[in-house]
Amino acid sequence: MPLTQPISESEATGKVKEIFDEIRQRRRLAEVPLFWRTIAVNPDYLEATWNKLKVVMAPSRIDRKTKEMIAVAVSAINNCDYCLRSHTDALRDLGVDDATLVELLAVVDFFSGSTVIANGLRIAYEPPVYAEAAR
Amino acid sequence: MPLTQPISESEATGKVKEIFDEIRQRRRLAEVPLFWRTIAVNPDYLEATWNKLKVVMAPSRIDRKTKEMIAVAVSAINNCDYCLRSHTDALRDLGVDDATLVELLAVVDFFSGSTVIANGLRIAYEPPVYAEAAR
Amino acid sequence: MPLTQPISESEATGKVKEIFDEIRQRRRLAEVPLFWRTIAVNPDYLEATWNKLKVVMAPSRIDRKTKEMIAVAVSAINNCDYCLRSHTDALRDLGVDDATLVELLAVVDFFSGSTVIANGLRIAYEPPVYAEAAR
Amino acid sequence: MPLTQPISESEATGKVKEIFDEIRQRRRLAEVPLFWRTIAVNPDYLEATWNKLKVVMAPSRIDRKTKEMIAVAVSAINNCDYCLRSHTDALRDLGVDDATLVELLAVVDFFSGSTVIANGLRIAYEPPVYAEAAR
Amino acid sequence: MPLTQPISESEATGKVKEIFDEIRQRRRLAEVPLFWRTIAVNPDYLEATWNKLKVVMAPSRIDRKTKEMIAVAVSAINNCDYCLRSHTDALRDLGVDDATLVELLAVVDFFSGSTVIANGLRIAYEPPVYAEAAR
Amino acid sequence: MPLTQPISESEATGKVKEIFDEIRQRRRLAEVPLFWRTIAVNPDYLEATWNKLKVVMAPSRIDRKTKEMIAVAVSAINNCDYCLRSHTDALRDLGVDDATLVELLAVVDFFSGSTVIANGLRIAYEPPVYAEAAR
Repeated sequence: MPLTQPISESEATGKVKEIFDEIRQRRRLAEVPLFWRTIAVNPDYLEATWNKLKVVMAPSRIDRKTKEMIAVAVSAINNCDYCLRSHTDALRDLGVDDATLVELLAVVDFFSGSTVIANGLRIAYEPPVYAEAAR
Repeated sequence: MPLTQPISESEATGKVKEIFDEIRQRRRLAEVPLFWRTIAVNPDYLEATWNKLKVVMAPSRIDRKTKEMIAVAVSAINNCDYCLRSHTDALRDLGVDDATLVELLAVVDFFSGSTVIANGLRIAYEPPVYAEAAR
Repeated sequence: MPLTQPISESEATGKVKEIFDEIRQRRRLAEVPLFWRTIAVNPDYLEATWNKLKVVMAPSRIDRKTKEMIAVAVSAINNCDYCLRSHTDALRDLGVDDATLVELLAVVDFFSGSTVIANGLRIAYEPPVYAEAAR
Repeated sequence: MPLTQPISESEATGKVKEIFDEIRQRRRLAEVPLFWRTIAVNPDYLEATWNKLKVVMAPSRIDRKTKEMIAVAVSAINNCDYCLRSHTDALRDLGVDDATLVELLAVVDFFSGSTVIANGLRIAYEPPVYAEAAR
Repeated sequence: MPLTQPISESEATGKVKEIFDEIRQRRRLAEVPLFWRTIAVNPDYLEATWNKLKVVMAPSRIDRKTKEMIAVAVSAINNCDYCLRSHTDALRDLGVDDATLVELLAVVDFFSGSTVIANGLRIAYEPPVYAEAAR
Repeated sequence: MPLTQPISESEATGKVKEIFDEIRQRRRLAEVPLFWRTIAVNPDYLEATWNKLKVVMAPSRIDRKTKEMIAVAVSAINNCDYCLRSHTDALRDLGVDDATLVELLAVVDFFSGSTVIANGLRIAYEPPVYAEAAR
């Protein structure tokens, strides 16, 4: 149970009801996920967050699957159980298997470590100096 | 300047020299980046880290560009200047433009916020209940 | 159960007993919370932490409710279940309702995202240039 | 300089120009801050972020000053130079002095530490048991 | 249960089987821990990670116990339940008691707080100026 | 320059002056470091923080050098420039060389990565099952 009381679907009215309907439709769901029902206590915030999500996840230069992978990376670093389960479920729907998930987390593992080295030893970046043959 | 003295290329010998050569060759560089010269103080650690990087970045189920994007996401969250510059340089080489970088960071922005909501309000995940028509 | 054995109230003596008494009195509790009983294994550390808490939470230029809200913000970012429950309980006692908690987390959500943008794109701050009419 | 080229005010058109105008007006600025010009590369994202900020910062159950303080807390934890300078400038405009800023950071200090204790020793929360006299 | 299916010991072959054998032997275990069986989905990644762990944990200038303590510090900050339990179990085997664990976490507590102060108030470091008598 | 005006040594009086004197004496310094002068704006907070530091850093079950190493680990993860320079200076005074610092950061690197794997794949800890011969 969340720390605050979520809005049930039956009590949703006005703007909240409209967004709940849109969430169900777009995601072909029978029930609005708890995340959205929890923040619906504040209808303007629900609206602004849902609108931003639509913009952010719209496939443009980066496709949907890559965006879900980035969401998993962020969720792993922030140790968010809800988010990890939600985004891996989304990736499963997009055909992603166990080996891909482990390959994804391996990248997050490596760079979570190397950022700490670069920051921890205060290593300054210098633009790469390419070999003659490389240009 | 890093907190510790990096190994210069001229003083590298044995295992360190071999890895320095491999780094230059694989990346077509004239000079070994400071990150690698800094950790080369510990040759076994240099070797294990370089070997792990090769495994982690090898394109398999996930392509190189996506992996560099994930590296940028991790680096942004960990606020690593060296890493951000290094991985955006790599993405530039792969043809990524400003609009793509901002689109990438927009995803990291959104989920950095929503993980805090899900964690902060202790929202429990429930598997999606799909509408009849969706299945 | 914590990873270490907490001190039970009956076995507390000396400095630990005094602080346990003070915790119960100040907060009008019948039982000393597990956090304090856990760190009481180290009486000097218990004392220094309790003394610092009293200083930090004393209403001065910032009132108690605002301080508890900041505690919730920190706890949400650090994903601390104990802390989130403890500080939202404290806010409930101060009359805070669900809508306020969601409004609070909304602020934490937004800035958790925008810090990642500013850091991730290495955006340098420039002091605001005000319009003539504004001054 | 940011990692990506910001949009200059003179080249802004359409939706971006409208939002730039609104940012200047609302904040009585002569120049649009670099944060907004940087993300303006993606007009929809600029719009969604600006709209969300307006919702999130609108004084409702929590006043503007408290919200700026929470923004400082988040920025301190995420070590965001741009954000810290921006939000402390905003707090200065609201009459906040040095002593208040240090008092604010003292709260962030304490709870950044105690969340690590509660998480690190896996201390489970139990609802407070109040003394008879307290109820 | 992990988000992905771990490799069971009976189905391990080739490189994975060899590493599983080495893990059991080195740690005198009857069963390979779930962490290793989970990442074994990707044999090259398992190998690179195991090799790096051996390098990183080998007692050299820093002894094993100190390294396990640092692992606990990192795990506490990252709120990793698996890691905290695994490394405190390792420390218990090395003779560490409750008081030592709390003393360790006290250090992590203090510096988790003071890093936020130094970062949050943008305090610049200046090398110490020693008193005459100290040199 | 910090975001707030530090207290200069000449203007310190009362409790602040006493603590400044103690800081200089204990560390054999000619000048009080900027960290302490910055938080001295709030004398009670200065006192509580200094008292807690003395408790936390007092060698007991864990020696001073190990505690400074843990401080470096925390500072690297939190990317605190002030703290990293301060604690590596302290370690240099205790005879720590470059190779030790890199060995220390290597441990932080590895576990910063593996905590993300354990959290990101939701791997549940199971107590080790030891081989017969091991007991």
